[in-house]
Amino acid sequence: MSQPAPQPAPQNPDDAPKSATNVPALEVGAEWLRGEGELSDVLLSSRVRLARNLAGRLFATKATRRDRQETLDVCREWLMRAELASKMIWVDLHGSSPLDRALLVERHLISKNHSKGKGTNPNEDPRGVAISVPDERLSIMINEEDHLRIQAIRSGLSLSQAWADIDSVDDKIESKLDYAFSPRFGYLTACPTNVGTGVRMSAMLHLPALRLTGELEKVKRAAQDMSLAVRGFYGEGSEAVGDLFQISNQTTLGKSEQQILQDLEGDILPKVVEYERLARRELLAKRRVGLEDQVWRAWGALSNARLMNTDEAMQALSLVRLGATMGLLRGASGTQDSPDPRTINQLMLLVQPAHLQRAVGRELDQEQRRVARASLLRSRLLRPKS
Amino acid sequence: MSQPAPQPAPQNPDDAPKSATNVPALEVGAEWLRGEGELSDVLLSSRVRLARNLAGRLFATKATRRDRQETLDVCREWLMRAELASKMIWVDLHGSSPLDRALLVERHLISKNHSKGKGTNPNEDPRGVAISVPDERLSIMINEEDHLRIQAIRSGLSLSQAWADIDSVDDKIESKLDYAFSPRFGYLTACPTNVGTGVRMSAMLHLPALRLTGELEKVKRAAQDMSLAVRGFYGEGSEAVGDLFQISNQTTLGKSEQQILQDLEGDILPKVVEYERLARRELLAKRRVGLEDQVWRAWGALSNARLMNTDEAMQALSLVRLGATMGLLRGASGTQDSPDPRTINQLMLLVQPAHLQRAVGRELDQEQRRVARASLLRSRLLRPKS
Repeated sequence: MSQPAPQPAPQNPDDAPKSATNVPALEVGAEWLRGEGELSDVLLSSRVRLARNLAGRLFATKATRRDRQETLDVCREWLMRAELASKMIWVDLHGSSPLDRALLVERHLISKNHSKGKGTNPNEDPRGVAISVPDERLSIMINEEDHLRIQAIRSGLSLSQAWADIDSVDDKIESKLDYAFSPRFGYLTACPTNVGTGVRMSAMLHLPALRLTGELEKVKRAAQDMSLAVRGFYGEGSEAVGDLFQISNQTTLGKSEQQILQDLEGDILPKVVEYERLARRELLAKRRVGLEDQVWRAWGALSNARLMNTDEAMQALSLVRLGATMGLLRGASGTQDSPDPRTINQLMLLVQPAHLQRAVGRELDQEQRRVARASLLRSRLLRPKS
Repeated sequence: MSQPAPQPAPQNPDDAPKSATNVPALEVGAEWLRGEGELSDVLLSSRVRLARNLAGRLFATKATRRDRQETLDVCREWLMRAELASKMIWVDLHGSSPLDRALLVERHLISKNHSKGKGTNPNEDPRGVAISVPDERLSIMINEEDHLRIQAIRSGLSLSQAWADIDSVDDKIESKLDYAFSPRFGYLTACPTNVGTGVRMSAMLHLPALRLTGELEKVKRAAQDMSLAVRGFYGEGSEAVGDLFQISNQTTLGKSEQQILQDLEGDILPKVVEYERLARRELLAKRRVGLEDQVWRAWGALSNARLMNTDEAMQALSLVRLGATMGLLRGASGTQDSPDPRTINQLMLLVQPAHLQRAVGRELDQEQRRVARASLLRSRLLRPKS
């Protein structure tokens, strides 16, 4: 993932980007990180997103800056006035600092493309996002690839609930705003791959045991054979840091939302979870000591290092998450319990560069981030449970 | 270091080698591991050894098995009858198991060559060692390269004391046994490099900071220019595991014991210690965080791993010893103090294969040793101080 270059630290508080104040604070909610819900030992979260465009307006890809400004104004005005507004905050991305935008990307509330912006002066490209707080279940990006990208995330296997969330929001928006829709093709979108339902459903899975047993490639190929996309923690083109993978449908045309939902939630995702669980049982049966060694060494590095980069932190957190869900790390934090899966999930976000800088309260260079990351990990993993 | 191949585990207690009982038990004494005495932050121990041969008997290199048996009988009888005997135990090496002999090598009480034996049936080569207990300060090898190899070890910079120990023993032996001596050359030895005083004085130094700052080669070259030998933890040909180095005189002809002693104790060794201390201060001043990171990660590995080989253990113990002596590991063991240097010194022996098997009480294959080593380290490093 390519980070925006950090800006120099503001000389005085007045120079700080104004938008910083309305970007959600750390650990406000992020319901999807709770580590609750069905199959959550393997399946962290379920996500549904819809691509929607306003009728009678040029698609974002063709639009001038003025068109895009108008789209933004229309959407923001409606979204922040509607009954949704009481639970939503609005962030103008063109007024935000690169660090704040990076924070939203790390939090999976906007996409990398949305963070970057379009055109000759992408920083000032009119675009924004509405986010439900404090649960962060819902985010609505305006002027990403489509006029509206509506997303709902929930913890565990809960595509049906996420779909219900999003369907209700979609109906509310459609009652006020006119969507581009063709009776023949369905919802029209900037990219043909999204035409039809405009829906993408995905799940974030933690698959360390399949990597350790060498069966990950097999599962990936099987998923691809079923027209599923397998991506990394930060979506398209991102590496699978921390053994986290997004599995999502690729086809939106010719399949109803209900079919996609049924295929994923009722069949494919539980199967992938079962493969991972089988691999975990296999590791326990065939090389328990080797697994315990890896898991405890990861714990030892996280709870002792004084310098740590993001990749190492994610890899170690992945092993610690595996060990915690398998009951192999009892007593590690100084209590009889295993480390709390919710803490591990949250740390997977908190070690990312923008979150880390937000936690510290100032911009940090790479070396300072390595120090701060190691310090954060020690304090979170070793502090007594509250 | 090439270990003798372990023998299959005895099927019943009566098959166990009889000598197992008279090999010193673990942690009996080993005064030189105490981490006390002058300069002991860097200089672990001081050692003096004498090469002596009986007059009128063929040197061990030329001797038949019968000659060697006679030499052994004469020496053992005298040693175990003399006033020394109350503090000494005797071990017949030709009656010992490979594991017991390996234990004595690891403990620096006999040499690797002495463990192996000579001739067509080296296992039955008549040879033995007398060891002072419980301090293990004194050991007298019979039928090593020379008829007698007398060694004294003490903690810290204490060559003078070790020399006094050995001089007194040497006088006692010489009062009863006739040494091969030439008025022109001095004491005669099997190998010409030992002719003259027959004395070798050495110190075991822990030089991790010189390795980390890249200055170790410079120090080694300087030592060689002064006709000093620089060897690893287990002497000639052994690797410098755990950043431990033996520095010793190479010349025995043409220099009196007092000159050798004065050069080493009064000049060279304090200088090497000062170089190492300078390198430690430089590390603290120029890259403290990087050093703390290495030291704490080593601690994390030692206190968390479930599998560990000897080399990794020695390397991590070296860093932990460095950190403990520099006060960087306060709080690591759960107390406010740094880990106890004596514990770290002892662990450097206890993680060796034979010591490990002795601690567990049975022979172990390589995988079992890795498990036992990790377990021993955790229990010793994390247990509350007694």
